[in-house]
Amino acid sequence: MQFTAQQIADLLQGQIEGDGTVLISKLAKIEEGETGSISFLANPLYTPYLYKTKASLVIINKDFELTAPVTTTLLRVESAANAFTQLLEMYNQVKLNKKGISKMAFIAESATVGKDIYAGEFAFIGENAKIGNNVKIYPQAYVGDNVVIGDNTTLFAGVKIYSETVIGKNCIIHSGTVIGSDGFRFNPENDHKKVPQIGNVIIEDDVEIGANCAIDRATLGSTILRKGVKFDNLIHIAHNVEVGENTYFAAHGVVAGSTKIGKNCMFSGQVGIVGHLQVADNTIITAQSGISKSITKPGETYMGSPAFDANKYRKAFIHFRNLDALVQRVNALERQLKEADVNRKS
Amino acid sequence: MQFTAQQIADLLQGQIEGDGTVLISKLAKIEEGETGSISFLANPLYTPYLYKTKASLVIINKDFELTAPVTTTLLRVESAANAFTQLLEMYNQVKLNKKGISKMAFIAESATVGKDIYAGEFAFIGENAKIGNNVKIYPQAYVGDNVVIGDNTTLFAGVKIYSETVIGKNCIIHSGTVIGSDGFRFNPENDHKKVPQIGNVIIEDDVEIGANCAIDRATLGSTILRKGVKFDNLIHIAHNVEVGENTYFAAHGVVAGSTKIGKNCMFSGQVGIVGHLQVADNTIITAQSGISKSITKPGETYMGSPAFDANKYRKAFIHFRNLDALVQRVNALERQLKEADVNRKS
Amino acid sequence: MQFTAQQIADLLQGQIEGDGTVLISKLAKIEEGETGSISFLANPLYTPYLYKTKASLVIINKDFELTAPVTTTLLRVESAANAFTQLLEMYNQVKLNKKGISKMAFIAESATVGKDIYAGEFAFIGENAKIGNNVKIYPQAYVGDNVVIGDNTTLFAGVKIYSETVIGKNCIIHSGTVIGSDGFRFNPENDHKKVPQIGNVIIEDDVEIGANCAIDRATLGSTILRKGVKFDNLIHIAHNVEVGENTYFAAHGVVAGSTKIGKNCMFSGQVGIVGHLQVADNTIITAQSGISKSITKPGETYMGSPAFDANKYRKAFIHFRNLDALVQRVNALERQLKEADVNRKS
Repeated sequence: MQFTAQQIADLLQGQIEGDGTVLISKLAKIEEGETGSISFLANPLYTPYLYKTKASLVIINKDFELTAPVTTTLLRVESAANAFTQLLEMYNQVKLNKKGISKMAFIAESATVGKDIYAGEFAFIGENAKIGNNVKIYPQAYVGDNVVIGDNTTLFAGVKIYSETVIGKNCIIHSGTVIGSDGFRFNPENDHKKVPQIGNVIIEDDVEIGANCAIDRATLGSTILRKGVKFDNLIHIAHNVEVGENTYFAAHGVVAGSTKIGKNCMFSGQVGIVGHLQVADNTIITAQSGISKSITKPGETYMGSPAFDANKYRKAFIHFRNLDALVQRVNALERQLKEADVNRKS
Repeated sequence: MQFTAQQIADLLQGQIEGDGTVLISKLAKIEEGETGSISFLANPLYTPYLYKTKASLVIINKDFELTAPVTTTLLRVESAANAFTQLLEMYNQVKLNKKGISKMAFIAESATVGKDIYAGEFAFIGENAKIGNNVKIYPQAYVGDNVVIGDNTTLFAGVKIYSETVIGKNCIIHSGTVIGSDGFRFNPENDHKKVPQIGNVIIEDDVEIGANCAIDRATLGSTILRKGVKFDNLIHIAHNVEVGENTYFAAHGVVAGSTKIGKNCMFSGQVGIVGHLQVADNTIITAQSGISKSITKPGETYMGSPAFDANKYRKAFIHFRNLDALVQRVNALERQLKEADVNRKS
Repeated sequence: MQFTAQQIADLLQGQIEGDGTVLISKLAKIEEGETGSISFLANPLYTPYLYKTKASLVIINKDFELTAPVTTTLLRVESAANAFTQLLEMYNQVKLNKKGISKMAFIAESATVGKDIYAGEFAFIGENAKIGNNVKIYPQAYVGDNVVIGDNTTLFAGVKIYSETVIGKNCIIHSGTVIGSDGFRFNPENDHKKVPQIGNVIIEDDVEIGANCAIDRATLGSTILRKGVKFDNLIHIAHNVEVGENTYFAAHGVVAGSTKIGKNCMFSGQVGIVGHLQVADNTIITAQSGISKSITKPGETYMGSPAFDANKYRKAFIHFRNLDALVQRVNALERQLKEADVNRKS
């Protein structure tokens, strides 16, 4: 794909400053710009690069004031960041615009599929599955029996969706992720017998799930990810968990069984949450922390394992770092007191 | 599937109280019961739901005494919990009763397969593999050369079993799990050369492994999971590890190379265990803890990273939370002593 | 495969002591040796096994002095450890010597493939992919559009490589690993909209990646693993991260976005590293530690979460374990001082 600077300006409704005929064929960071590439400048920290970039075209904010001459063509828009994002999206839409059902895919006769779907080679769609319009099922993905997938959802290569799972619209699920595997429940008192897991997983609209996650089906009822939930890679969600709207999990998060998590929470990497808890809306958990009790007050930040108030944790941790000095001080106090005692007695 | 309440009563050898002709088509929690669903009541905390549930049939203990009228039909049995589990199992057996070898599966000519197996679409079975009776190999699963799989074992979609692995009877392995990948050994002193990993993995009978786990083959000899081991999702087991009978690992557990773990241990989520250790039988490890030394006394509980006795850890952690107050107290003591000293000298 | 002791001696350029005609068909540890197996002795701790092993042949160092009679045939070489590794490598090369393109694989017409490649059943190679010589793509592996793979690289069963990824020569990638999934970036201020991820992943030569890892593509530009990087299982690498030459990650390591890691670092299991940091060369991080600040001095060891100097951490941790005793001492000091005060005033 190749465009002139002016074509891109028309697309983004911006104004060219310099040579509008320059040809653009790729997107690059301003510090890595080359001939033929387009970049953008939004963060003031990167301003110096504007004057030395080799990019052929740089998108800047309308009101940006040059303090030196530039060699690149400029494209002034309302918001350089938004305009660049718009370009990225267009690029991605072209790249990911897969269509058609491969002859090397398997679709059960009882399954129903919508319009304009993509089903790649070695993809599997099971009995009675219902696939919406514009759904993309990449090669080697697996859609079990009775699964329902809403419009415009994408399953990347090798995603595994167990039977009875329900997935909403506009979701993206990355390679290797498993949805609907059995919850982890056995009975140590009864010869370690498996407790059958016959519930399912429900994923609402606009959810994105990273690579190699594992989301277990409910024992009975549903494990639920609400609208807009965002998961990074390698997340584990146990049976009967519920994650509230627009809650974010960074990589390697772990939630044990039956815990209910509120809306708009932000969890950093490697966070663990014990089972059967409630976590209030807007809760923030710092990396590697472990939540062992329910959180009832919304909007608080937690740290540590087991976690408590993050500010208190940071203070306690500073003292922890200095524990050796504290011990020395107590040693000194004991010595002084002993000496004082000796003095007094003598 | 649809049954009358009386048919289910006959199946579970219980007694109907109310309308035995009511029709049942699904299983539900008592608090989520609907017309046509069957629930159970075992936990006294849920007793209030019995009097307002919309479920058509509720299984209760024989000796349960009603304290108000109910609208649902009751089914009295010896143990409501066990009877419901029995129902779940029947449901699951019907649901998971896959049979037959797909024309879109690949089975090497030198492989041998038992009776009544399921080999789904795009499943791969390699050279000289030996597959027992009633084994289920779901679509896109991979069984490498010389692998042996015992009767009644299930590999869900996309499981990957490397060559030479031996898996026992009645095992369940969930999607995305990899068994027999190379152990992590390189030689930093010799140009980072790989140490060849030519051992295998042995999994004994009645083992269940969750989704997206990774269990490495031994350098030489075998990595071994003993009878009845239960793994949650995303567990890592390094080369030459041995896990004892009926030991449980919750999600994201990590065991480094050559460690030997005893029987009947219970490890919570995100536990890490250093290599070349011994862990005694019946050991309990709390979530996010890290074991850095061998554990020789059976039946103890460990906490922390590095972990020590859990009770001592909890006590130390309470002091940690209050470190700021302790520091203030030491400050005060120093002040007092200084003043006392000044007083004395003056 | 079966060889005489003498044939193996010739291969390894060593000298036989005992029966050179004994037949060898497998490799085993010295403590697990059986008739027909070959073992080695390098670690002095295992010397006692030499005198009771049932192995038919044992490789020992040239200068090893027997202190008792042995029943096994001996094979003396310069370095027993190296000679045995050499044997393991030969064994592995034979075992992994897969060749040929399966009729059940899919290769896009626009893709180009080198000489002597292996493409197993249900493997997928996308548009314009460039596959080097002797590349092995195991069954059910996925190679997206425009991917480049260098000579002698192996992708085990079910590996998923997203479009635009570039992989060097002599790399090994284990089953379930996903390379090139989208970075985790959304805009909570703008209706949680996805930030398009249009960069790629570059993996240089001689890299080995374990099972079920997830390595995200860059937002723009490249996520990079430099020459000789070694990853254990279940590692997460976020968008735009760079990992320096010959750096090792043990299992479950996590690196957040845009962090740059130096050369020859050694990270133990479950380590986490915050985003946008720099980590100096030769850094060592102990298990379960969390790096929250850039590390500028090379060759240091870090421990804790958040981590600091490992020696200081260990010292602070000893005090933490003994916090209860310290609190008792402060209690005692307060009592003494109070009594002294009472005495003085009385």
